[in-house]
Amino acid sequence: MNSLQIFEQIKAKQSFLCIGLDSDINKIPQHLRKQKYPLFEFNKQIIDATVKYCISYKTNTAFYEACGEAGLNQLAMTVNYLKSHYPEIFLIADAKRGDIGNTSQMYAHAFFEKMKFDAITLSPYMGEDTAKPFLSFAGKWIILLALTSNVSADDFQMIKTENGRMIYEEVIERSKNWGNADSTMYVAGATKAEMLATIRKIIPQHFLLIPGIGAQGGNLANVAKYGMNDICGLIVNSSRAIIFADDNTNFATAAAFAAKTLQHEMAELLAEKRII
Amino acid sequence: MNSLQIFEQIKAKQSFLCIGLDSDINKIPQHLRKQKYPLFEFNKQIIDATVKYCISYKTNTAFYEACGEAGLNQLAMTVNYLKSHYPEIFLIADAKRGDIGNTSQMYAHAFFEKMKFDAITLSPYMGEDTAKPFLSFAGKWIILLALTSNVSADDFQMIKTENGRMIYEEVIERSKNWGNADSTMYVAGATKAEMLATIRKIIPQHFLLIPGIGAQGGNLANVAKYGMNDICGLIVNSSRAIIFADDNTNFATAAAFAAKTLQHEMAELLAEKRII
Repeated sequence: MNSLQIFEQIKAKQSFLCIGLDSDINKIPQHLRKQKYPLFEFNKQIIDATVKYCISYKTNTAFYEACGEAGLNQLAMTVNYLKSHYPEIFLIADAKRGDIGNTSQMYAHAFFEKMKFDAITLSPYMGEDTAKPFLSFAGKWIILLALTSNVSADDFQMIKTENGRMIYEEVIERSKNWGNADSTMYVAGATKAEMLATIRKIIPQHFLLIPGIGAQGGNLANVAKYGMNDICGLIVNSSRAIIFADDNTNFATAAAFAAKTLQHEMAELLAEKRII
Repeated sequence: MNSLQIFEQIKAKQSFLCIGLDSDINKIPQHLRKQKYPLFEFNKQIIDATVKYCISYKTNTAFYEACGEAGLNQLAMTVNYLKSHYPEIFLIADAKRGDIGNTSQMYAHAFFEKMKFDAITLSPYMGEDTAKPFLSFAGKWIILLALTSNVSADDFQMIKTENGRMIYEEVIERSKNWGNADSTMYVAGATKAEMLATIRKIIPQHFLLIPGIGAQGGNLANVAKYGMNDICGLIVNSSRAIIFADDNTNFATAAAFAAKTLQHEMAELLAEKRII
């Protein structure tokens, strides 16, 4: 999938929403926990109810690994379900991996070949070695952590370098030519929307994956104001505020309502910017 | 396990060797690949042959994830085998995770409770949130990436900050009080042995996990010269040079020989420093 194909989907659905399937076994509705494949059943119902409002799903691998082999199996089942029923969806493995070349090669095989993810999130700390093996897969994407939305993101990302830039800017500046705007995105948190303007000066064309809407408190209008480019250039994620909108048998309908509300807001922002 | 218990083992075995079970399904001997549990069978034979020469094993999770659920299952089998037969061994999940609090909580559960690892490697990029949930487990360890041994480590780790320090120094300086010398280690590559002196000025007491011996070309004597403290303070890892020392039915004996050679060198260095 390339950036224009993602843009086509954004226009078709009037949405740049990604839904995070952070499917915590301890938080999914009680009535599903007794099933053979509780995480998959939960995901399937969430997906069917929300797919018309979003262009992407992001599975946080931690929540599946926490359930051992059974969890990994249900992650694979979720990927297969999405890819066979909704092939247009941009599917992100939120794995935050980052290792040396031979190890990255193994991860690339696991996430891009064994499972059919379109993209994987990576930590940049170990440098270009981390990214290279993933970039050799045509049509697949790396999404590098740049400016995250968590409280302690400032610990290192905001350290000022000797040339006056912040570390997150250096990460983007130094990595932007490892691949290109059709193979590389960056994580940039919604909780720091003003900094998206700084980021846009370094990478006007790249897509940004924006976490921090919803449970983490980011503001969508500000994200659009500072981050949107002429092909939208944004994929905004919401996880808990959608998938755990309700905790009983009504959970999928509640999730659909929460997703639809965000999609409407996104449609307005896209119209304001004359993108649709 | 605390640092003194690790030191006891170092004295008993006259070794500070960690063996990396980077058990690549494409590199293990042909005759094992047809078995039901090839990675586990390989690991078991390697462990039985080498355990008297090392104090620690490190499983690189990528190599298991690359084999899907079957791989994860064999990782769990390896952990169980080690913990039931050799409980004194310090067992590291080389996972290089790093995510926000609720996700780290899931990983901590997966690696420390579901599987009984003693330690996990973490990327520091997202800051203290990443580490906190792991640090609430008494007797368990985090091992933060500081100075890695790969070629592109310099991309970000060597960026100079406005106060004249390198990023890897900032990482250590800012994180050293998240936990303490009984809960936190740092990855510091053998390929940059001189920098261990700089690191020792910031954290004289902490253990360092040193990759880069063997296939990556680091020098053990230099590592000891610059990095050793009064309780050794070093766990030096070798992976490929040991586990793939031979690729036929003789692989375990060849691995034992390679491990024994390193252990002898380590015993000499420990004696030189009057630690044993």
